[in-house]
Amino acid sequence: MVTGCRGAWVAMAAWFAFSIATATVFLLLVLSRVSQAQVFFFPFRQPETCGHNEYFDISALSCVPCGANQRQDARGTSCVCLPGFQMISNNGGPNIICKKCPENMKGVTEDGWNCISCPAGLTAEGKCHCPTGHILVERDVNGTLLSQATCKLCDGSENSFMVANALGNRCVRCEPTFINTSRSCTCSEPNILTGGLCFSSTGNFPPRMTSAARYGELGVSLTSEWFAKYLQSSAAACWVYANLTSCQALGNMCVMNMNSYESSTFDACRLFQFIFENTAGLRTVHSFSFWRQNLPWLFYGDQLGLAPQVLSTTPLPTNFSFKGQNQNTKLKFVAASYDVRGNFLKWQTLEGGVLQLCPDTETRLNAAYSFGTTYQQSCEIPVSKLLTDFPTPIFYDVYLEYTDENQHRYIWAVPVLNLNLQHNKIFVNQDSSSGKWLLTRRIFLVDTLSGRENDLESQPRLVRVATQISLSIHLVPNTKNGNIYPPLITIAYSDVDVRDPTSQSVEVSFSVRYEMDQGEAHVQTDIALGVLGGLAVLSSLLKTAGWKRRVGSPMIDLQTVVKFLVYYAGDLANVFFIITVGTGLYWLIFFKAQKSVSVLLPVPAQEERFVTFVGCAFALKALQFLHKLISQITIDIFFIDWERPKGKVLKAVEGEGGVRNATVPVSIWRTYFVANEWNEIQTVRKINPLFQVLTVLFFLEVVGFKNLALMDSSSSLSRSQSSYIAPYSRILRYAVSAAAWLVIALMQIVFFVVFYERFIEDKIRQFVDLCCMSNISVFLLSHKCFGYYIHGRSVHGHADTNMEEMNMNLKREARNGPARLLSSPASTFEQSIKAYHTMNKFLGSFIDHVHKEMDYFIKDKLLLERILGMEFMEPMEKSIFYNDEGYSFSSVLYYGNEATLLIYDLLFFCVVDLACQNFILAACLTYLQQEIFRFIRNTVGQKNLASKTLVDQRFLI
Amino acid sequence: MVTGCRGAWVAMAAWFAFSIATATVFLLLVLSRVSQAQVFFFPFRQPETCGHNEYFDISALSCVPCGANQRQDARGTSCVCLPGFQMISNNGGPNIICKKCPENMKGVTEDGWNCISCPAGLTAEGKCHCPTGHILVERDVNGTLLSQATCKLCDGSENSFMVANALGNRCVRCEPTFINTSRSCTCSEPNILTGGLCFSSTGNFPPRMTSAARYGELGVSLTSEWFAKYLQSSAAACWVYANLTSCQALGNMCVMNMNSYESSTFDACRLFQFIFENTAGLRTVHSFSFWRQNLPWLFYGDQLGLAPQVLSTTPLPTNFSFKGQNQNTKLKFVAASYDVRGNFLKWQTLEGGVLQLCPDTETRLNAAYSFGTTYQQSCEIPVSKLLTDFPTPIFYDVYLEYTDENQHRYIWAVPVLNLNLQHNKIFVNQDSSSGKWLLTRRIFLVDTLSGRENDLESQPRLVRVATQISLSIHLVPNTKNGNIYPPLITIAYSDVDVRDPTSQSVEVSFSVRYEMDQGEAHVQTDIALGVLGGLAVLSSLLKTAGWKRRVGSPMIDLQTVVKFLVYYAGDLANVFFIITVGTGLYWLIFFKAQKSVSVLLPVPAQEERFVTFVGCAFALKALQFLHKLISQITIDIFFIDWERPKGKVLKAVEGEGGVRNATVPVSIWRTYFVANEWNEIQTVRKINPLFQVLTVLFFLEVVGFKNLALMDSSSSLSRSQSSYIAPYSRILRYAVSAAAWLVIALMQIVFFVVFYERFIEDKIRQFVDLCCMSNISVFLLSHKCFGYYIHGRSVHGHADTNMEEMNMNLKREARNGPARLLSSPASTFEQSIKAYHTMNKFLGSFIDHVHKEMDYFIKDKLLLERILGMEFMEPMEKSIFYNDEGYSFSSVLYYGNEATLLIYDLLFFCVVDLACQNFILAACLTYLQQEIFRFIRNTVGQKNLASKTLVDQRFLI
Repeated sequence: MVTGCRGAWVAMAAWFAFSIATATVFLLLVLSRVSQAQVFFFPFRQPETCGHNEYFDISALSCVPCGANQRQDARGTSCVCLPGFQMISNNGGPNIICKKCPENMKGVTEDGWNCISCPAGLTAEGKCHCPTGHILVERDVNGTLLSQATCKLCDGSENSFMVANALGNRCVRCEPTFINTSRSCTCSEPNILTGGLCFSSTGNFPPRMTSAARYGELGVSLTSEWFAKYLQSSAAACWVYANLTSCQALGNMCVMNMNSYESSTFDACRLFQFIFENTAGLRTVHSFSFWRQNLPWLFYGDQLGLAPQVLSTTPLPTNFSFKGQNQNTKLKFVAASYDVRGNFLKWQTLEGGVLQLCPDTETRLNAAYSFGTTYQQSCEIPVSKLLTDFPTPIFYDVYLEYTDENQHRYIWAVPVLNLNLQHNKIFVNQDSSSGKWLLTRRIFLVDTLSGRENDLESQPRLVRVATQISLSIHLVPNTKNGNIYPPLITIAYSDVDVRDPTSQSVEVSFSVRYEMDQGEAHVQTDIALGVLGGLAVLSSLLKTAGWKRRVGSPMIDLQTVVKFLVYYAGDLANVFFIITVGTGLYWLIFFKAQKSVSVLLPVPAQEERFVTFVGCAFALKALQFLHKLISQITIDIFFIDWERPKGKVLKAVEGEGGVRNATVPVSIWRTYFVANEWNEIQTVRKINPLFQVLTVLFFLEVVGFKNLALMDSSSSLSRSQSSYIAPYSRILRYAVSAAAWLVIALMQIVFFVVFYERFIEDKIRQFVDLCCMSNISVFLLSHKCFGYYIHGRSVHGHADTNMEEMNMNLKREARNGPARLLSSPASTFEQSIKAYHTMNKFLGSFIDHVHKEMDYFIKDKLLLERILGMEFMEPMEKSIFYNDEGYSFSSVLYYGNEATLLIYDLLFFCVVDLACQNFILAACLTYLQQEIFRFIRNTVGQKNLASKTLVDQRFLI
Repeated sequence: MVTGCRGAWVAMAAWFAFSIATATVFLLLVLSRVSQAQVFFFPFRQPETCGHNEYFDISALSCVPCGANQRQDARGTSCVCLPGFQMISNNGGPNIICKKCPENMKGVTEDGWNCISCPAGLTAEGKCHCPTGHILVERDVNGTLLSQATCKLCDGSENSFMVANALGNRCVRCEPTFINTSRSCTCSEPNILTGGLCFSSTGNFPPRMTSAARYGELGVSLTSEWFAKYLQSSAAACWVYANLTSCQALGNMCVMNMNSYESSTFDACRLFQFIFENTAGLRTVHSFSFWRQNLPWLFYGDQLGLAPQVLSTTPLPTNFSFKGQNQNTKLKFVAASYDVRGNFLKWQTLEGGVLQLCPDTETRLNAAYSFGTTYQQSCEIPVSKLLTDFPTPIFYDVYLEYTDENQHRYIWAVPVLNLNLQHNKIFVNQDSSSGKWLLTRRIFLVDTLSGRENDLESQPRLVRVATQISLSIHLVPNTKNGNIYPPLITIAYSDVDVRDPTSQSVEVSFSVRYEMDQGEAHVQTDIALGVLGGLAVLSSLLKTAGWKRRVGSPMIDLQTVVKFLVYYAGDLANVFFIITVGTGLYWLIFFKAQKSVSVLLPVPAQEERFVTFVGCAFALKALQFLHKLISQITIDIFFIDWERPKGKVLKAVEGEGGVRNATVPVSIWRTYFVANEWNEIQTVRKINPLFQVLTVLFFLEVVGFKNLALMDSSSSLSRSQSSYIAPYSRILRYAVSAAAWLVIALMQIVFFVVFYERFIEDKIRQFVDLCCMSNISVFLLSHKCFGYYIHGRSVHGHADTNMEEMNMNLKREARNGPARLLSSPASTFEQSIKAYHTMNKFLGSFIDHVHKEMDYFIKDKLLLERILGMEFMEPMEKSIFYNDEGYSFSSVLYYGNEATLLIYDLLFFCVVDLACQNFILAACLTYLQQEIFRFIRNTVGQKNLASKTLVDQRFLI
């Protein structure tokens, strides 16, 4: 505006200033160009900021003065005449004209258009004033203005029962209770006037010791204006006249007081109970003994043990399912809603977020009632929003609707567990044993009414909010068709002390849980654990016995016990692993694949046992893994070079100047080569562990297998962005990741065994081939009296030769037909030997049967020996060599222990995921630990190899 | 209930049936036990299903018959007397007693308590009937019942202007317009009665050719009851009486018609324009020429080119910032809201989701107005919900509030671009050029009113919903303090044809975008591209020249051109990479770190250029990578064995039986060893690429670096679950991932170079050492006339010996002091040679300077030669060997091309992420391609090695 004015001024200045120098004109043009740029701002005025004789112009959004003899009206957007002025023109809004009334007619009529003389004084607004109970008469019946207004008393006699209405301009019939009680329109002593109703003090008036107190959370109690006004009257109307809405209103007050009652105080619930007890003669509704005719149904009985009976005796006569067209996949909750005065509002389904205070889209809100979907929602809500959205509380009686075979619709009452209920000052519903619970019926969400003191229009001192609402649905044990017990609504209210509604907020949550009794599952896992644990003991004993034989020590000493424990740890880890994977897959398959519901997932509290099992499996497996690692990096290894010197050559002896016959040295490079390769295959595995980690991650996160772990009934791999995402089940996460891990590992193993190792490369076979080609045998002593022997004596006799000969050797091999290079005489052998302290040379002669006193013989292993992994025959006089078709020596490498490594990695991944619920973190950490252990295995293994074979570390690259 | 009854019956039966056999008793006991289990279900009855003489018992929730002479009331929850029956008792609800009226008094009074004789007939409800314009008088002024009801005509004369009210029980003053027009309470011809108002046909009544049509989307047009009823009257009242609310109501109708107008039809907007034009004499509001006094401000002018002037001439006189306590981080939008009848409702801020139809929590909704947060929200809303929540439309005039230096509050009008606006049947606002736009002011969200035909209470035929609301905020160019131009609200409405409200739904969205002119940034990247592109050409020319020299061909042929293009591709890829990373980091740093806002992120449309650049960089880099890969797997390699036979041994010749002197063969195993190691170092890299991928993934996803790529002002690494998550910026995603990739790679390289290769192992040095120990030199010919030579002649003369001697050699080395094994004479050399077709032996003699005609000399490389990577001196007569301190031969391995590989991997990762916005997928695919190319490089490289060196592939393991 400022700029606009200046622009106009500048333009005018420019108009009259042609004579001024060009520079000035240019400057002005620039200025006027700027001024042309229109600005669209003006001061921000609000109706409240306008003065008393100003109105808020709703077009210009600013304050404008009213006309003469006028002032602002109540809303502030229009003008009215001052008292003593009559309106003579009104074109709507502020366009009115006022005129002073003549001296003899100082009053203005109610409609403001005429002046009139008043019988008594004037009100502040300049209207005629009449005494209470009188009506003001300004006009004839047909509307003709009287010259003098009169005040008339309404005819309260027997025939008319008339009384002035609230506006004081008409007589209306008085309240029926007045007539009933006193046959008049006055409620004089000893009759009792309360809440606008009149009751006779004689007869069956309820006990008068009523308390208007509204109980808050411990310690907070205030005198509620609502209770003070209407508690006694609604109780009396309910009892005396059996008035339905009054009974409902009384019930609502009891619910607002958290259904709490004591026998001593006559508060809302005690009054309700009083009426309930004293109307025992009336019949009950629908034959429910807790539901008296005319009264709302608020309580179940207060017998001990009633709650478990209500909750888990009778299943609902309907079946639920997860999928299918014409099947029951929705929990159809309906609620009868009442306003605070006791009027029935309507039947409404709970869909669309009736009980959910947190805002969300319809689809996501309705997911709460899709059978089998565990639902959780929570948010913070500003108190100011609660005050705006819930001026009065709405009360809900919740039912579950179902249809019987004949398509008749029935509803089943849903019990409520109000955690704030106090019975004789004890929070009975917070007890862990359901036997002590007092179930109730009616709930509300937000109560901003009962917390108002002194005035029903003021801001409440306290607001009571249902901060936690939880629906729990129990499956009937051993059901095959999705039978459930009646659902239970657990509700917790909080009181908010209202100080600054805009900055205060309250945390609310809504959840739906599905439970079933997991006792049977626990028994079954216990049985499995017992049986498999026993087998594990047996297996460990066998392994320890085998180990004893291999180390050649017959005594049971501490080392034996330790060894047994280590073996047992490994076996027990397998047992835990099998049980956890089995359980996980059981839940995954049976929960997700079922149509008619027969199992439900364990709730988080029931998962603890499972998580402990996984933890045990991991800890024990880690022990086994470390044990294997340590025993692998301390094995004894020898290379036997079968090459013999080719002869002698003449050699100049240094220093002496002569020539001597010297043996041609056998080149050590073949040994270096073999040692180098042995070093390299130490951490070769049957699968690619990194591919494994990344593929598992890919399938879980990108393909969406992780969606299978959601606690809902869908078994689809993707969720649309607009649909509700249920929380994860830890068991299902474990099951899905373990299954993905195992399946991918299996596919990798199959790929490597069937394709890769056959057609691309097989590191282990390559090593054995190399031994053979280099004419070097490998002696591996994994135990004191047990080891492996890779027979590498070359078929060609000599390997230490030049390339032509080597190539000829290789070609000769190729010509000899399809037999593989080393298939004919050489192979790997296992070996049990009696002594350890032998040397390289000695070993060669030993293999050549040179020492008659330490001979050996070769035999095949028995099937049972293969299966058990131990030897039955003890080498007494001769050592025994067992033929070995597979590469059993790989058990001193990573390669031969794939199962242990795989399960260890898997458990590491799952344990990290169970702890953090993050597959990416689990993948990264799994990779990291793999690398660390691989590095340790490589480095220490290399050092061990160097020290045992005397091959310099510089050749182990 | 059914079970309950049967239970009781069974119990009774059991009582009287002791004599029956035990089996029956047992059966009955079982049955009665079942019956004890209480069931809480009953039939589902709704008030609508009760019969006419039944009421719905709100306590028992079932239908109950009314008493005698009664029927259901309107709500269904209570009873009323039948016509002709008076009420004689009423205890609330259904507890009433009715009595037949006597024959002489057939009418019932309005309150239902008395019988009265009627002057004329009876209504259907049994009340007295009076003719129109008359009021029914049943009682005296003081309430005494008359014996005979009378009908009276209201006094419509000059003094009283009285007319019967709607209920027909009282006389009230008639509408002021009637009095103004006709000085009576009737609106007779030629006056015009419309919308309950009376207008004189003479004088300034607006054109009568008004159309009640409401325009829908193309083709749909219906006669709206609201328009038919109130259009003419509000236009007339607005014009004739300048009534503020009528003007607003007329404006609202124009807005409901999408502000569309044609010059020919007198519809709502044309009428508005008519009044606007004909009140030009009145002053404008706040000096805005588009805002006439008394009228709402609906349009900006319709001059061509006005929109750009309004939108981007004057910046708002306030500054915005991203952070800070006392700074402006909120866009404070306020809206003046009006109801459909034109009443001003209130000023309200847009916070709390006033314009956002999708439900969400307060925090997330308010994030829309946090400066700098790009906001997007969309959802589907059921039509039934719209019908319930928006019975009448609310209209908003949106302003942006700000405070000047003196703490005065101002508001700036926010212009609206209504995409559905038709100006002379053309959708001008859908034009891409803003010069043609017609800006407007007022908006609404949902209009269920104007789509009602015939009846304002019926279900509408059409519902109009603002399905897309978008707020766009433009930064002033070159601002340093966050100055913005006025925001623009772009709004698109959709018409929904209401057929089945519960199943229909409508997709709505709300978004806030921040834009700035990216022209300058584009110019800058273009300049950078030009300059760096020129350098790239230069560099590629140099490289091509170097290559020409190395291949020894002076001619420029097709191959040269291809080579140039390949080099150019590589250099250009680097240029694109530098520009994209630079741009990305610029946005990341300058956008996220600023306090006073000076830059805003490019919007998705502006990102296209950037994405193209990244795509180019990747494609060109891939070309370079493939070129390197191919040239690496086709190099020529030779091993020179310096070992000489140790002498001659006697050897038995096969077949001849004699003995011959034979040379002791030099063992080939050292060559095998060296070849094997060469094979192994082919794909060794300076970093661990898998660690790289997983660490990047870890930092992006787990640590939360990806949150830096969100289009909001926060630079924190984590977002709370309850806060709003802005959409991702593709540029920022690229910047964050590239930065993470580069930093982690740098740290890896530093770690490997400074620590790992020095203290743990260095594969390249190990290989060189091995060459030396094994007395074998390696000749690598990467080009026709250029290659590398690793000099491995052993200092000990002989390497082909047994372990004792080798260990002695090694020990001697160690004693000789700190000099490294191979540091003294041998090192790696580069070599330019003239001929290619030489043999192993020839090479050895060549190195030994045997061939005088092909001699060579050794020199150091010049600094510039090192930098440019080419040789200046052309070998004319002698070959040249350059000393090489680093391991330059590694450029034929992965090891020496780390930069190319790293950038290629990075770009691969980023391209996948740009395409899919999924870091996990990008990581998995990057790993996969790495593995595939590594496999190819290994396998083909191994084959090449085997074929070039004649070493059997079985030794390359």
